[in-house]
Amino acid sequence: MGSMWGNTIKISVFGESHGPAVGAVIDGLPSGISLDTDVVAAMMARRAAAGKALATPRKEPDAVEILSGLFNGYTTGTPLTGMITNTNTRSGDYEKDKPRPGHADYTAQVRYDGFQDYRGGGHFSGRLTAPLVFAGAVCLQALAQLYPGVRIGSRITALGGVADASAVAPGDYAALTYADADFPVLDVKAGEAMKAAVACAREAGDSVGGVIEGYVTGLRAGVGDPIFDTMESRLSSLLFAVPAVKGVEFGDGFAMTGSKGSQMNDAFYMDGERVATRTNHNGGINGGITNGMPVVFRVAVKPTPSIALPQETVDMARRAPATLAVKGRHDPCIALRACPVIEAAAALCILDSLMGAEKWKRSADK
Amino acid sequence: MGSMWGNTIKISVFGESHGPAVGAVIDGLPSGISLDTDVVAAMMARRAAAGKALATPRKEPDAVEILSGLFNGYTTGTPLTGMITNTNTRSGDYEKDKPRPGHADYTAQVRYDGFQDYRGGGHFSGRLTAPLVFAGAVCLQALAQLYPGVRIGSRITALGGVADASAVAPGDYAALTYADADFPVLDVKAGEAMKAAVACAREAGDSVGGVIEGYVTGLRAGVGDPIFDTMESRLSSLLFAVPAVKGVEFGDGFAMTGSKGSQMNDAFYMDGERVATRTNHNGGINGGITNGMPVVFRVAVKPTPSIALPQETVDMARRAPATLAVKGRHDPCIALRACPVIEAAAALCILDSLMGAEKWKRSADK
Amino acid sequence: MGSMWGNTIKISVFGESHGPAVGAVIDGLPSGISLDTDVVAAMMARRAAAGKALATPRKEPDAVEILSGLFNGYTTGTPLTGMITNTNTRSGDYEKDKPRPGHADYTAQVRYDGFQDYRGGGHFSGRLTAPLVFAGAVCLQALAQLYPGVRIGSRITALGGVADASAVAPGDYAALTYADADFPVLDVKAGEAMKAAVACAREAGDSVGGVIEGYVTGLRAGVGDPIFDTMESRLSSLLFAVPAVKGVEFGDGFAMTGSKGSQMNDAFYMDGERVATRTNHNGGINGGITNGMPVVFRVAVKPTPSIALPQETVDMARRAPATLAVKGRHDPCIALRACPVIEAAAALCILDSLMGAEKWKRSADK
Amino acid sequence: MGSMWGNTIKISVFGESHGPAVGAVIDGLPSGISLDTDVVAAMMARRAAAGKALATPRKEPDAVEILSGLFNGYTTGTPLTGMITNTNTRSGDYEKDKPRPGHADYTAQVRYDGFQDYRGGGHFSGRLTAPLVFAGAVCLQALAQLYPGVRIGSRITALGGVADASAVAPGDYAALTYADADFPVLDVKAGEAMKAAVACAREAGDSVGGVIEGYVTGLRAGVGDPIFDTMESRLSSLLFAVPAVKGVEFGDGFAMTGSKGSQMNDAFYMDGERVATRTNHNGGINGGITNGMPVVFRVAVKPTPSIALPQETVDMARRAPATLAVKGRHDPCIALRACPVIEAAAALCILDSLMGAEKWKRSADK
Repeated sequence: MGSMWGNTIKISVFGESHGPAVGAVIDGLPSGISLDTDVVAAMMARRAAAGKALATPRKEPDAVEILSGLFNGYTTGTPLTGMITNTNTRSGDYEKDKPRPGHADYTAQVRYDGFQDYRGGGHFSGRLTAPLVFAGAVCLQALAQLYPGVRIGSRITALGGVADASAVAPGDYAALTYADADFPVLDVKAGEAMKAAVACAREAGDSVGGVIEGYVTGLRAGVGDPIFDTMESRLSSLLFAVPAVKGVEFGDGFAMTGSKGSQMNDAFYMDGERVATRTNHNGGINGGITNGMPVVFRVAVKPTPSIALPQETVDMARRAPATLAVKGRHDPCIALRACPVIEAAAALCILDSLMGAEKWKRSADK
Repeated sequence: MGSMWGNTIKISVFGESHGPAVGAVIDGLPSGISLDTDVVAAMMARRAAAGKALATPRKEPDAVEILSGLFNGYTTGTPLTGMITNTNTRSGDYEKDKPRPGHADYTAQVRYDGFQDYRGGGHFSGRLTAPLVFAGAVCLQALAQLYPGVRIGSRITALGGVADASAVAPGDYAALTYADADFPVLDVKAGEAMKAAVACAREAGDSVGGVIEGYVTGLRAGVGDPIFDTMESRLSSLLFAVPAVKGVEFGDGFAMTGSKGSQMNDAFYMDGERVATRTNHNGGINGGITNGMPVVFRVAVKPTPSIALPQETVDMARRAPATLAVKGRHDPCIALRACPVIEAAAALCILDSLMGAEKWKRSADK
Repeated sequence: MGSMWGNTIKISVFGESHGPAVGAVIDGLPSGISLDTDVVAAMMARRAAAGKALATPRKEPDAVEILSGLFNGYTTGTPLTGMITNTNTRSGDYEKDKPRPGHADYTAQVRYDGFQDYRGGGHFSGRLTAPLVFAGAVCLQALAQLYPGVRIGSRITALGGVADASAVAPGDYAALTYADADFPVLDVKAGEAMKAAVACAREAGDSVGGVIEGYVTGLRAGVGDPIFDTMESRLSSLLFAVPAVKGVEFGDGFAMTGSKGSQMNDAFYMDGERVATRTNHNGGINGGITNGMPVVFRVAVKPTPSIALPQETVDMARRAPATLAVKGRHDPCIALRACPVIEAAAALCILDSLMGAEKWKRSADK
Repeated sequence: MGSMWGNTIKISVFGESHGPAVGAVIDGLPSGISLDTDVVAAMMARRAAAGKALATPRKEPDAVEILSGLFNGYTTGTPLTGMITNTNTRSGDYEKDKPRPGHADYTAQVRYDGFQDYRGGGHFSGRLTAPLVFAGAVCLQALAQLYPGVRIGSRITALGGVADASAVAPGDYAALTYADADFPVLDVKAGEAMKAAVACAREAGDSVGGVIEGYVTGLRAGVGDPIFDTMESRLSSLLFAVPAVKGVEFGDGFAMTGSKGSQMNDAFYMDGERVATRTNHNGGINGGITNGMPVVFRVAVKPTPSIALPQETVDMARRAPATLAVKGRHDPCIALRACPVIEAAAALCILDSLMGAEKWKRSADK
C-alpha cells in the first residue's frame, strides 16, 4: 500500500507522472480554515520553478483544482481534495525494458509484476511531490490560523559538493531570510559555487546531490509521542517519502556520535519564565517530544538518478546487458526543488502532531 | 499515542522502567511458527549483557513470560504477548524536579502534565527496548521459517570517536562474522581503541556515542511500497523509536550528496539469471522498494545523556537554576547495547513488509 | 475523520453533493486486475436508475473518470482513483437554517461549526454512495479474477411495510435470479404491493423504508478475524456507512434471540469431503469467521428523511420554531437504490478480508 | 489480525480462555485520570457474577493486575495495561476434534490451520470480554472526569422469548434505575418469567438468547464522523466484537422500515436554548453524528452455543459424522452477562469519539 499517512489528519496521495492527474485527499482537517488559493499557487510555483534556469525545462502550470472539502473559501471539515492535471508529458521518452540505474524502474517492475505505469516513473515520479506540496500549503495555512507563531523553513547546506557552513544560533532560526527564496543559502559565495557545480554537471550530462536543512520554530514543548510516534519517527517517515532522500538526521545527528555526553546534552536554564536550553545539539527533540527549541533536521538528497550519460543496465525483456542514455527532461539537481517539498512534509507532520496533542491537554484543563 | 506500530503485523509496547513489567503484544503473526524460547532468551541476554564489563551494572534476568498466543510451542495466530517483570530497580536514584539534560524528563513532564512515571525515564527508558528485542526475536524465527535465506545483522562502525572504516563488498555481507558477537567490529584494532574510549569516558563520569550499521541479506527484490511506506520510511520510523538514535541513512546516505549521479547510480547487470547491481550505493533500495541487493543502513546513536558529571539544569518546582549529577547505574555508551535492538527493529519491519508483499504476488499467480 | 476504511486495501471517499465532484481513492489493490469500465458503468447505472420511475428525477450520468492506477486496462497496484463529476444540481432547493428532521443537517452544523457544505446534505448526501458503488464495481471484478466462485447479491425482503417472506435454502442462494434486477424480489406479488406502497407514499409527499438482504456465496471457510475484526464487525461498519441504514443483522439475527441453542446451533455434517452445516441460522459466520456457508445479512433502511410534507423544525439562525416542506427531488424510498450500494459494501469487505487472509495461509504452505 | 481497535485511544486485547492470562493494553488515554481500582473490580464482578445462580459455576476472581500506565493512582498517559490471570480452568472438558455447533471451534481450526488454542474456545472465548470490561471500567472513569454528565447504561428487553415491552421516554433514560442491577429489567414481572425461561433451559441442557438495550445520555450533539466512522459504524464494530451478538440496531432500527418518513423523522424544537427532538426514533444519531438526544441501541444475543444436549457434529480428524454433548460449565444464557460488556463497549467508543471530537472544536475557538 503506502500512499496514505497520518494519525489526526490523514492524507491519501494518488497519481502517475504521465496519467491524467495527480492529487491528494486530506481527511481530518478542522472546519473553518480559510484557504487562500493564491498562497497555494505560490507554493506550487516554488516547487515547479525552484532553481529556475537550473531545473528541468518541463514546465507544468501545476494549477490545483479543489474537488471537495472547500466551501465559500473555508474548509468544511470533510475530505479536502486537490487535483493537478498532468499536461505537457512526453511519454515517448521512456523505455520500459531498460530500467534506469538508481531509479525505481526495476523495483516497480518486480513489485507490480510489470503492470506499473512505467512512463516517467509513474507513481514513483518526483511529480508525486506536487500533491504533497499542495497538502503542505494547506497545512501551513491551518498552522498559521490555529497555532500562530509556528514557522517552517528550509535552506540548502550543501550542493554539488559545496557546503554552506554558516552556523545558525538557535535563537536566530525564527528570523532567517534569504536573498533568493528560490535558492536559500546563507553564504552567498558558497551559493554561487553550488550553482556553478550544478551547471557543470548539467553540461556533462550528469547530476549532483545536496543537503537540505529544515527547521520549525515557535513550536511549544510537549508535542510528539513515545516509541513509534516520536517526532523523529514521524518526520523521517514523511521525509523518506520524498524521492531521492537517503538520509535524515536531527540536531547534530551523525556528528553527535563522535562527541561526549557532557558536550551533547543541552543544558536547561530559565529563560525568564520559560525553560530553554543553552545549546540545541538535540534539534529541539528529547525522547521524541519537542522541548520548545527549534526543531532542526537535515535531509540527504542523492544526485538525480536520471542522467544523460550512457549507463550500464539490463534489457529486462531479453534478460541481457544493455546501455541506456536517459532522454527526456531532467533536473541536474533535484535537491534544488526539494526545499518546498521538505517544508510541506514538515508542515503536514507538525499540524498532525499539534492537533493530536490538543486532546492530551484536555485532561489538565479539568 | 505512539506505542503501536505495523501494517500486516501490529505490535503494542507497554511498560515503565520502574513499574511492574514491560512487554509487547504482537498481533497478526501467522499461526504455526515454532518458537524456541531459548533463542528468545539468548537475544534478550545479548541486549542485557552487551558490552559486558563496559555496560551498566543493573543486571536484569529479563526472562520473558509468554501470556498468550503460544500453544504447544507454536504461535496460535492470535495475539502473542510477552511480559518481562521489572526487578532490581532503585527508584530512589531519580529526582523528579531536576530533568536530566538530553533526556526525556522535561518533555515528558510537559507532555503528560506531570503525571508521567518519572522513575528511570518511565516509558521513555532504554528498558523499553527489552520488549522490542523480544518482538525481534520472535520475528527472526518467523523469518527463518517463512522466508529462509533472509539474514539480519549489525556491526559497530564507530564508537567514542573511533571509526571502523572496514569496507564490506555487497556480496560479503551475508557471511559476516565477528570475533566477539557482543562487540561486532571488523577492525579488531579499532575495536580495542573503541573500548578504551568507553572506559575512559566511564572513568570521567562521561559517555560516548557511536554508529551502528545494520544489514539485511537474502531479501528478494520487490519488497516495500511507494510514498509513505517506503522501506526507508518504515525502517527509519522504527529505528528512531530506539532511544538516543538521532540519524538514519541508507546505503552511502549523506556521503551520496557530494557525489555525481554517474557515480552513485548502481549499474544493473545480469548475474546469471538474476538482475544485480555492480555497486550498492543505494543500500539495496530504489524508490523505496528492495532491489535484491543487501539492505544496508547506518544509525547514529548519541552519547548516553545520563552522566555522572555535574550538569546545569533547572528545578522545575521552584522554576530556578539547579545542578544535577546523575546517580544510579548508567551505560557510558548505549550504542554498545544497540546492536540487538537495531536488529530487532529490522526484523519486525522486514517480516511485516514481506508478509504484506505476499498478497501482491497473488495476482500474478492467476 | 471517517472517510477512510480498510486493512489490506484502503478506500478514501471524498466529495459533496453539490461540489465539483465525488470520488474514491482505492489503495492496495493488486496489480494486474483487468478493469472493464463498461461493467463499472453498468453498476453505476444500477445505482442511479434503480426503481426507475419510482426514484428521484435527478438523473446524473454518473460517468466515472479514472484519474490514476489504471494503465492499459489493468490496475497498476498503486492508488486507483475514480472521480464522478457532479452535474444537474439545484442548490437553491436547500435552506441552510432549517435542518431537515431525520437528516444530518443539524448534526453536521454542530459538528463542523457551520462550515459544512449544506447544499444537498454535502458530504452526508446519498450521492456519496456513488464512489462506494464505483469501489464496489472494482472490487467485484478483482474478486472475479482472484477468487472465482465468490458471488455477491442482494434482494428486497420488505418495503413500505410489505414483506417478501420467501425462504431461501442455504444451497439456493448461489443461483438466485430475479425477474427484474432493478427490483429484486422473489415474491413478485409482494413486489407489486411494494411498488404500490412507494407510489402511494410519493403521492402523499411521504416516504417509506425497507429491508435489504445481502448474501455472499462461494466464500471459503476461515475468512475473518477475532474480536474487533469479525466479519460482522467489519461488514456492519461498512453497512452503517450507507446513509439511512439503522440496523444490521446476520443470519437469523434478532429472531435468534427468542429461540433455543438447540434450535439455532447449525449442526455440522460431512457434505462429501467438505464440512457443511445443515441449517444456516448463523449466516455463514461463527466466531466472526466464515464457515463456508453463504454469508447472509439484513439491513434496515429507514424511510427517506427528505419528504415534501410540512414538518416541524427550528430556525437555527433565529433559534426559533419553524416549519419546513422539503423542496427538491427526492426518492420516496432510498431502500430501492440501496441494493447495489449494499453489494458494493460487501464486495469491498470481502475482497479486503480475502486478501488479508491470504497471508495467513502462507504459514501452512511451508 | 483483529484484536486492536480505536482512533484516538487504541485498545489491544490478548489472551486465551485457558492460557496464562487475558488482558488489554490501552494506548492514548489522557494522563491524570484518577483510577479507582475498586470501581474496576466492581464492574469486573458484575460481569463475572451477573445472573448469579443462573450463570456458569466457573467463578474466577477476575482480579486485574495493572502492569503499566498507572502511577500514584493516576494514568500516566502512556499505555495502560491490565492483566487478568486465568485460574480454575478445566481444560480436559474440551474435545479438539469435535467442533461445537454455533461456536468458533471449526472456523478457528480452518483459520489458524489447527494451531489455535482450542481449549475453551481460546481467543474466541467469552472470557475475552473480561479485558473489554476492564477497558470499559477505565473509560467510564475517564468519561466521568473529562465529560461529566455522560452516563451509560443497559437493560434487558427480551430474554428466553419473554419481552420487557416497557417504553422509555427519551427524557427518562438518564434516570433509569433497576431493582436488581444484576438483572436490569423494568417490568419486574417479565423479569420473573425471563428467569424461569433460563432455569427451564438450563434444566433441559439447552440455552436461550436475549436482547440488550444500551443507552448513552448526557452526550452533546456533534460527536461522530461521516461515512465509515459514523457512531453507528463504530459502535456496531465494537458490539459485534462481543461473542454471540448477531444483530445491532439504533433507535427504532428494523421497526423503522415499516413506517413512513413523516412518522420516523424526529421533529426539531427549541427546548429552551437547546435544540431537541420531539421523538427519538433515530436513537440520538443523524447522519452518523449525535444530535444531543439519548443514544439508544439494541443488541441481539443469540442463545449460548455450548449446550449439554447431544448435537450432530463432525469428527474433523476422521472426517466423519459424530455426536457431541458439551461438558464443562456453561451459561444457559450469556445475554445475562452481556450488560456490563455492552456498556464497556459503549464507554470505549464514546470516550474515543469524544476525545477525537475535541480537536475539531479547536477551529471554532479561534
